[in-house]
Amino acid sequence: MPHENQKRGRILRAPENFLDPALCAGITTEGLNAERRAFLRKSFLAAGAAVASGSALAQAATASGFEGDPNILKPTRAATTLGNPVAMHPYGMPSKYEKNLVRRQSPGLTQVAQASVAFAPLQGLFGIITPNGLHFERHHQGWQDIDPSTHRFMINGLVKNPKVYTMDDLMRMPSVSRMHFIECGANTATEWGNVAVPTVQYTHGMLSCCEFTGVPLSVLLDDCGFDRKRGKYVLAEGGDGSSMTRTIDMERALDDVIVAWGMNGEMLRPENGYPLRLVVPGVQGVSWVKWLRRIEVGDERWNTKDETVHYVDLMPDGQSRQYTSIQECKSVITTPSGGQTLLDKGFNNISGLAWSGRGKIKRVDVSVDGGRNWRTARLETPVLDKCLTRFNIDWTWDGGPAILQSRAIDETGYVQPKINQLRAVRGSKSIYHNNAIQSWKVAESGEVTNVQVY
Amino acid sequence: MPHENQKRGRILRAPENFLDPALCAGITTEGLNAERRAFLRKSFLAAGAAVASGSALAQAATASGFEGDPNILKPTRAATTLGNPVAMHPYGMPSKYEKNLVRRQSPGLTQVAQASVAFAPLQGLFGIITPNGLHFERHHQGWQDIDPSTHRFMINGLVKNPKVYTMDDLMRMPSVSRMHFIECGANTATEWGNVAVPTVQYTHGMLSCCEFTGVPLSVLLDDCGFDRKRGKYVLAEGGDGSSMTRTIDMERALDDVIVAWGMNGEMLRPENGYPLRLVVPGVQGVSWVKWLRRIEVGDERWNTKDETVHYVDLMPDGQSRQYTSIQECKSVITTPSGGQTLLDKGFNNISGLAWSGRGKIKRVDVSVDGGRNWRTARLETPVLDKCLTRFNIDWTWDGGPAILQSRAIDETGYVQPKINQLRAVRGSKSIYHNNAIQSWKVAESGEVTNVQVY
Repeated sequence: MPHENQKRGRILRAPENFLDPALCAGITTEGLNAERRAFLRKSFLAAGAAVASGSALAQAATASGFEGDPNILKPTRAATTLGNPVAMHPYGMPSKYEKNLVRRQSPGLTQVAQASVAFAPLQGLFGIITPNGLHFERHHQGWQDIDPSTHRFMINGLVKNPKVYTMDDLMRMPSVSRMHFIECGANTATEWGNVAVPTVQYTHGMLSCCEFTGVPLSVLLDDCGFDRKRGKYVLAEGGDGSSMTRTIDMERALDDVIVAWGMNGEMLRPENGYPLRLVVPGVQGVSWVKWLRRIEVGDERWNTKDETVHYVDLMPDGQSRQYTSIQECKSVITTPSGGQTLLDKGFNNISGLAWSGRGKIKRVDVSVDGGRNWRTARLETPVLDKCLTRFNIDWTWDGGPAILQSRAIDETGYVQPKINQLRAVRGSKSIYHNNAIQSWKVAESGEVTNVQVY
Repeated sequence: MPHENQKRGRILRAPENFLDPALCAGITTEGLNAERRAFLRKSFLAAGAAVASGSALAQAATASGFEGDPNILKPTRAATTLGNPVAMHPYGMPSKYEKNLVRRQSPGLTQVAQASVAFAPLQGLFGIITPNGLHFERHHQGWQDIDPSTHRFMINGLVKNPKVYTMDDLMRMPSVSRMHFIECGANTATEWGNVAVPTVQYTHGMLSCCEFTGVPLSVLLDDCGFDRKRGKYVLAEGGDGSSMTRTIDMERALDDVIVAWGMNGEMLRPENGYPLRLVVPGVQGVSWVKWLRRIEVGDERWNTKDETVHYVDLMPDGQSRQYTSIQECKSVITTPSGGQTLLDKGFNNISGLAWSGRGKIKRVDVSVDGGRNWRTARLETPVLDKCLTRFNIDWTWDGGPAILQSRAIDETGYVQPKINQLRAVRGSKSIYHNNAIQSWKVAESGEVTNVQVY
């Protein structure tokens, strides 16, 4: 019954096209026969199957590894073989059963895959840390794998002593480690228009969160004796072929910006700027310049290609809004989300992510009726500055249609807007900076789809 | 000059034996010629090379990509090729230059590699998160890759309703995400005796730290209606072939124990218990039962093999101390550490890890003279309960011999002991639970070695 399996499973296997449904954690209910399933569904609302009969017998059978009556539900048998050795994989990889949980690009989104996006599979992720192998990718001219022993990073411009640093130079300097989210300014761009994209991987998957380690940019600027009077901005330049250059205010550069080599405990991945990238907490990803080769101190904004042609917001009056780089307060429910199918009515945990480029998340509210009623979700700790926050909330699904939404509020008091509130200000020509409330519709069949609610 | 390279580089390449030196982040100074090195060493103590002459020229040359005078130091040239596409690696891997930073076992430590250890390379890690590919491994009869769709987890014993849960059952229940360290009770066992092990990978590498996601064990025990009067302990049983079973006090089981499937955002790795393991914050790793198949509620301790034959402390009076499972407050300097070589005198960042099974880290002190003088290190945030805490402290090395030590204090006021203080209580027959202060000796050559200071 492949259809039945699809309906009941948390996963729908993916056809290989842009509209492929969400790929969850690779868990299906195959292997459970129909009778056992029916039995499972009758059990306690918070799931779990009561041992069918004679629990003492079942226990005895379990403890001894004796299979016994096949109608008695039992835990997995313990292995009877030696298993695999330690360090079989000196650098480990996920289980073979997780092979569908990967980054995916959108063929056709750009002319070449070197200037495209690979989205993070948020529907199958937990907590706030994004594993490095699943961190989203957005390149402008492809990624490099630069030899760190030859990499040189320069600071010049309005500084007393322009300097060139080796990686060894940088890594013996005072370092900090901090957890921050990174979100592409174009994340959720598809939701400005029609709801063509079915899964949270494609609606919100240009979002990741890591612990970054590096030297504060302020320490390096001090080291070079930057001009405190005339130095109002810095320019960050990447080592790829796209001439990626971004202006950053000096106030921000001296605040929490990091020249980073570490990402979740290890060196950056090549796709994420190895061996050196800028970390600009709260600011859109394009400013987190990868393969960082140079910082220049200047007295005015540079108005580079990626600050004028791209990453600007076309406003209703026809003017382009520039340098709106802070990622405003936003949230999204990741489970259940588009493409997934609820197993059954009864208890279901609703889980999602909230973040703000202006500080900490104060509160997340969740609605299951399209925004008429709201309940406050439980925030997992730690709740950190300019970092993802995981929220969870209980929900007992009555089996009827439902519309799930989350609404984040940050410590400045800013409330995540509805899409029509955002459109009232921004018009309909925007590509970037969509932080509107996301709606997922749950059908009676349990299927979850992407809808817009005004 | 290979010798020169070894002396100056942060890394010593590894001979393939137990005594291999520390493998750091793969960064060498190869490619820098001797003149440039000499030049670098003369520069500002916090590293970085001043642009040789004519900084305006250097800047112009840099901005244009023009190579110009080869004596002028320049940043890495920007790429002129298209680079690699997104999603070239749907699940990403580290740079090819990081291939030496891996888990390593100790050949000969055990009879078979299925009952051995693969140590995490702490000397090359940053922050507090251990990337999943480098999480330490300790198996008793090898690891399994269990199909989650067929995995069944049972709760039985002194409960009203014994139940068997599927992964789907568990994953729709209320979940939590929390960051915790895990340390094998035998970590640092080598330091009870002679100082035979040269690197922090082998002295302290049975230590990792992740964000875990799962359902609190208390929720599951409630779901099964456990006997609140008679149920004093739970037994956790793994699905490998080693009959791994561990007793946990009910008070702890109801506190912060998690039945977990998530590890740093993704599903557990097979080596770490996929698809289900117990997370027992603050307690030695052996109790974090992997491939979890069963929890039994009982009224007395089980005294299983791994609670009587192993993981006990032989005390000076000849008695074995059992059930001492909490990992006491401990710390270690990871950079610089044994097997590494300081690049040069002048500024060097000292960095390390601190943790306590009893709560948060309150303070870490660092000595560079073998414990005569102490300075308080800077703690990176977040500082969390039963979680690694990263510390950093500035050090200006005068080029003379030095002995580096760190000493952690937790929120209970407990102070990490010296090895002779620990031996005064524990004697000399212990294998497990060594949380003594670690000493690293820095020679005038810059070479760092493992020493014991009493």
